Amino acid sequence: MTRTPEEERNLNHVLDMFHNVLVPLDSSKVDDYISPDYIQHSQMAPPGVESLKAFLDEKQAESAEAEQHLKRAFVDGDHVILHYHVIRFPSDPGFGVIDIFRLENGLIVEHWDCVQEVPTASPNPHSMF
Amino acid sequence: MTRTPEEERNLNHVLDMFHNVLVPLDSSKVDDYISPDYIQHSQMAPPGVESLKAFLDEKQAESAEAEQHLKRAFVDGDHVILHYHVIRFPSDPGFGVIDIFRLENGLIVEHWDCVQEVPTASPNPHSMF
Repeated sequence: MTRTPEEERNLNHVLDMFHNVLVPLDSSKVDDYISPDYIQHSQMAPPGVESLKAFLDEKQAESAEAEQHLKRAFVDGDHVILHYHVIRFPSDPGFGVIDIFRLENGLIVEHWDCVQEVPTASPNPHSMF
Repeated sequence: MTRTPEEERNLNHVLDMFHNVLVPLDSSKVDDYISPDYIQHSQMAPPGVESLKAFLDEKQAESAEAEQHLKRAFVDGDHVILHYHVIRFPSDPGFGVIDIFRLENGLIVEHWDCVQEVPTASPNPHSMF
């Protein structure tokens, strides 16, 4: 393994955020992980940390049964990448997400993603994950 | 910079593949970069290296004007991550792609991706990139 101690800290910070904020859709923990000045590139939510909290509260109300299954996680310096499968309700094929987070001084300061529905028909018999 | 020599080699291998295969949609260079046994998880193409070549030939014929703009690239051990913007024709908003490649012995052996259309309306004024 070639990760530096700082890379391990950055990766663990984002994994803790995933398990404590994204999985439970818990807006109350956002400030522990995400800078108030963070730059949001996701096209699903308006920018700003307060909008992110409102977005999480809305998803929590809409999809209390939602599950988020982490498939793989990487770190390169101050960037952390997560790949996971979101299932909104029991019969949902769900969608795949790849997130890229940039950290500064131990907090998330920038976020990009690509979100793709799991297709119900595909020329590829292999799983998306 | 904390990348090891092997990580630099893996990153450069995938960047060369991006510039020599994906940007020109050139199927003739696939074997220089991708193992004949590679595992394809993308839902856009059937599995196997010959299917990938046919997919590239088809895209080349359909979208000879296509442009692929690399935004950021990362490496963590034997995995390389690329984030780029594909524009199929001059007025196309295009789509974002995040690719994850796994390498073994200097060749790409596994590939996952998430592909998302650039929305023409979004609550977020920031670019997807």
